[in-house]
Amino acid sequence: MSSATDFVVASRGPTLQQPRSLRVDEIGHRLGGQREGQAGIEVSGAAPIEQAGPGEIAFLAPANAALLQKSRAACVLVPRTLPDAGGRTVIRVDDPRLAFGRVLGWLALRPAPQPGIHPTAVVHPTASLGERVAIGPYCIVGARARIDADSVLYAHVTVYDGVRIGRRCLLHAGAVIGADGFGFARAGDRYEKIPQVGTVEVGDDVEIGANSTIDRGTLTATRVGSGTKIDNLVHVAHNCVIGDHCVISAQTGVAGSTRVGDWAVIGGQVGIGDHVNIDARSVIGSAAAIPTGKHIHAGEPVWGVPARPLRQYLRRLACLGRVERLHRDIQELRQRYREPAAH
Amino acid sequence: MSSATDFVVASRGPTLQQPRSLRVDEIGHRLGGQREGQAGIEVSGAAPIEQAGPGEIAFLAPANAALLQKSRAACVLVPRTLPDAGGRTVIRVDDPRLAFGRVLGWLALRPAPQPGIHPTAVVHPTASLGERVAIGPYCIVGARARIDADSVLYAHVTVYDGVRIGRRCLLHAGAVIGADGFGFARAGDRYEKIPQVGTVEVGDDVEIGANSTIDRGTLTATRVGSGTKIDNLVHVAHNCVIGDHCVISAQTGVAGSTRVGDWAVIGGQVGIGDHVNIDARSVIGSAAAIPTGKHIHAGEPVWGVPARPLRQYLRRLACLGRVERLHRDIQELRQRYREPAAH
Amino acid sequence: MSSATDFVVASRGPTLQQPRSLRVDEIGHRLGGQREGQAGIEVSGAAPIEQAGPGEIAFLAPANAALLQKSRAACVLVPRTLPDAGGRTVIRVDDPRLAFGRVLGWLALRPAPQPGIHPTAVVHPTASLGERVAIGPYCIVGARARIDADSVLYAHVTVYDGVRIGRRCLLHAGAVIGADGFGFARAGDRYEKIPQVGTVEVGDDVEIGANSTIDRGTLTATRVGSGTKIDNLVHVAHNCVIGDHCVISAQTGVAGSTRVGDWAVIGGQVGIGDHVNIDARSVIGSAAAIPTGKHIHAGEPVWGVPARPLRQYLRRLACLGRVERLHRDIQELRQRYREPAAH
Repeated sequence: MSSATDFVVASRGPTLQQPRSLRVDEIGHRLGGQREGQAGIEVSGAAPIEQAGPGEIAFLAPANAALLQKSRAACVLVPRTLPDAGGRTVIRVDDPRLAFGRVLGWLALRPAPQPGIHPTAVVHPTASLGERVAIGPYCIVGARARIDADSVLYAHVTVYDGVRIGRRCLLHAGAVIGADGFGFARAGDRYEKIPQVGTVEVGDDVEIGANSTIDRGTLTATRVGSGTKIDNLVHVAHNCVIGDHCVISAQTGVAGSTRVGDWAVIGGQVGIGDHVNIDARSVIGSAAAIPTGKHIHAGEPVWGVPARPLRQYLRRLACLGRVERLHRDIQELRQRYREPAAH
Repeated sequence: MSSATDFVVASRGPTLQQPRSLRVDEIGHRLGGQREGQAGIEVSGAAPIEQAGPGEIAFLAPANAALLQKSRAACVLVPRTLPDAGGRTVIRVDDPRLAFGRVLGWLALRPAPQPGIHPTAVVHPTASLGERVAIGPYCIVGARARIDADSVLYAHVTVYDGVRIGRRCLLHAGAVIGADGFGFARAGDRYEKIPQVGTVEVGDDVEIGANSTIDRGTLTATRVGSGTKIDNLVHVAHNCVIGDHCVISAQTGVAGSTRVGDWAVIGGQVGIGDHVNIDARSVIGSAAAIPTGKHIHAGEPVWGVPARPLRQYLRRLACLGRVERLHRDIQELRQRYREPAAH
Repeated sequence: MSSATDFVVASRGPTLQQPRSLRVDEIGHRLGGQREGQAGIEVSGAAPIEQAGPGEIAFLAPANAALLQKSRAACVLVPRTLPDAGGRTVIRVDDPRLAFGRVLGWLALRPAPQPGIHPTAVVHPTASLGERVAIGPYCIVGARARIDADSVLYAHVTVYDGVRIGRRCLLHAGAVIGADGFGFARAGDRYEKIPQVGTVEVGDDVEIGANSTIDRGTLTATRVGSGTKIDNLVHVAHNCVIGDHCVISAQTGVAGSTRVGDWAVIGGQVGIGDHVNIDARSVIGSAAAIPTGKHIHAGEPVWGVPARPLRQYLRRLACLGRVERLHRDIQELRQRYREPAAH
């Protein structure tokens, strides 16, 4: 635990990680890729394939193969299956986008948060911080909270008392972890608060977006499993158990005591009611709404308000488009029925 | 007004409220309940009935009466109407969940915010703070704002100039009270801001969730009535008047100049247009959307996009499921009409 | 760049801008309006026309012309086309609401943020701040970020490294500009983060509401054009390009790489998928959902889930109301078909 003045978001100190440059052969070697073309070109930047110029690396999405020939990039990461690179300097890899992400990290194009506790962070003396954590300006770590090694809290993150954050987590500005769950009981002419004495447990390698809120459990822990990625302005209510390696997009809300299985993929602005059970590997389309107590099965994505299996959703949408037509058909049948049939 | 260093969220001082233990007879006495079984057992914890063990109290939801016999809890709060407690140590009360909430408070299982102004809070010299308020780290209380007695602002709460917060309110981290309402007028080739010179008035016993925003009125006050509970990431726009004892769940938005009557219950992710009028005691289902200018009547919950009375909503949903069938029926009728009838 | 202690949101200093009073003839002169009635009345306040009293100015919305005679306002701003002011003191202007907004500003009814950097703001030494910026308490301006002249950051605003904010912008409390876009690639048994090395570029005269989040681009800049107004709790994802003079209401989310043309008007809680293309001057109704990759054309507002041109949306809504009726009609036709026709 050290006091640092060079936290990148807003340090007062001068040290910033500097961008690096890498040779194409070095990149190919690190990626375990198959290089074609010039080995010695230096790469120090990255850009979309349409915009990349000299000194810059890009990647080729399989759907856009035609862009390769027009690109002025110094080097392009391409699928191993690409038939012909047409003389361009390329590196063949299994997954060009994934490989590109790794190169972005190596080039250090953007300064990374440095380990240390910003002097303005307010960390309770009973809190526990792991090795190399980076706690940004105006972060708050409450009593008995614990943040494990190599995690980064950007600015203005509030970690309430007793919350646990695993290793290598990344919490963006304004995230609030461990505020009270929303629980009240009617007591005659008013509501009375049910104290929320549980906590929040966040696993390893979790990312939580800006201004998202994860409420503490009433009695036990609200859980977010390892490897799960949560976007901005997401709400996770008390007592939820989110599995490992889930993806939850922006502005989605998960109501109380809902369980989300591992590897679920949830779109943006989804509303999930309380006590819902979502199977592992389920896929939920953006803007879907899942009523209280439902069970979502994996196998087919669900979509719509209320959510239904995708094919059913699409069929209904199509039918809906035909309702006007149905109406005309019925008028016509009635008419015919009154007139003598023409056979 | 005192400067405190032991605010629980992130104090620098060592004092934390300690959990207590209570005897079963003492709990029964305080609740005005009817005890059966052992009077002298000490209770120092609480858990869901399935998980509670020795030393822990739980409550029995009426729907789960069978769980009582399997529970290992030291004491269970049960409905007065439970026929037979089967020899377990129980306390009979009118509302077990409500009673359980009170016991949670008495046990002090989680340290409560202590009155005082955290040294990092920025309170304008013209602001007024009542007795025993707890203002957490990095809270901001603007010019001429007023926060009444016994209210708690957790961390990073922003109270803009002129805003009034009543007694015993609880504002969670990141709540923003009194930012400008969203008002503009088109002025030729640009929008011009309509200054928002009104304010926000929050009654007593109001809870406002993490990262929720309540905008100030244009000329008058946006109002939130006493006893109202607002969840996380809720937006209340300028000039709204929210009644007393309302419940507004997470991520709901209320557009400008809307009036919500007392005791309304509003689900999560509801969208309420501007100039809507919601009767007292209305119930609005999660994910409903209420168009501009509508009047919502109490008596039957409303549901859906756009919102309709629940029975109508369910009937339409059922009909929708039959649209495909309708289509086939019409094809069949047409076919039959062309062929000679079989009678 | 100066250190200021009198930032209005929560200054420790005593200086606040004082309200002014203006004579009716002076107001008429400044507005270029046509005064009728008493020139010398002093105006020092403003209120809705129903509530305005002596010393207060109000404006008359064209739909509410009857309110003029009942108003006790010292002066009313009315449309130039109003036939008869009935002896009231009025000022005739082209757009009474716009004019009223200007008068509100002149009266200085609410203290405005004063230029200066609040001593608690954390501004990185490599950041660049223009003349007369007002940076409120606990704001954070990251490495190499740039905030141009006359912009105001209220409290707790986080501007990440490298972000650019134009002139005369207004960022409300808790806004987060430049957090990482939400980009991951599957790498076997986990997701791997795609570093987000782009930035955010915000034009001039942009307003961004409380707790809204604008993510940085993956490689290039997420852009918000000049004159655009963004409400509270809005999410703009990485790589979006929002045009000039757009209006985006509260809790709307715009997914990655979407383009919004100039002068688009977008309601509240709208969900816009990724790679959507929205024409200039499009109008999108509140609570609409626009699927990935769609092209929204201007000319007719779109509405609904999924969004459709307004007339089509309304027609379908009406048809939906008739589905029950269709069902009964078909039963009746079937019945008749089995019985001998009555002709």
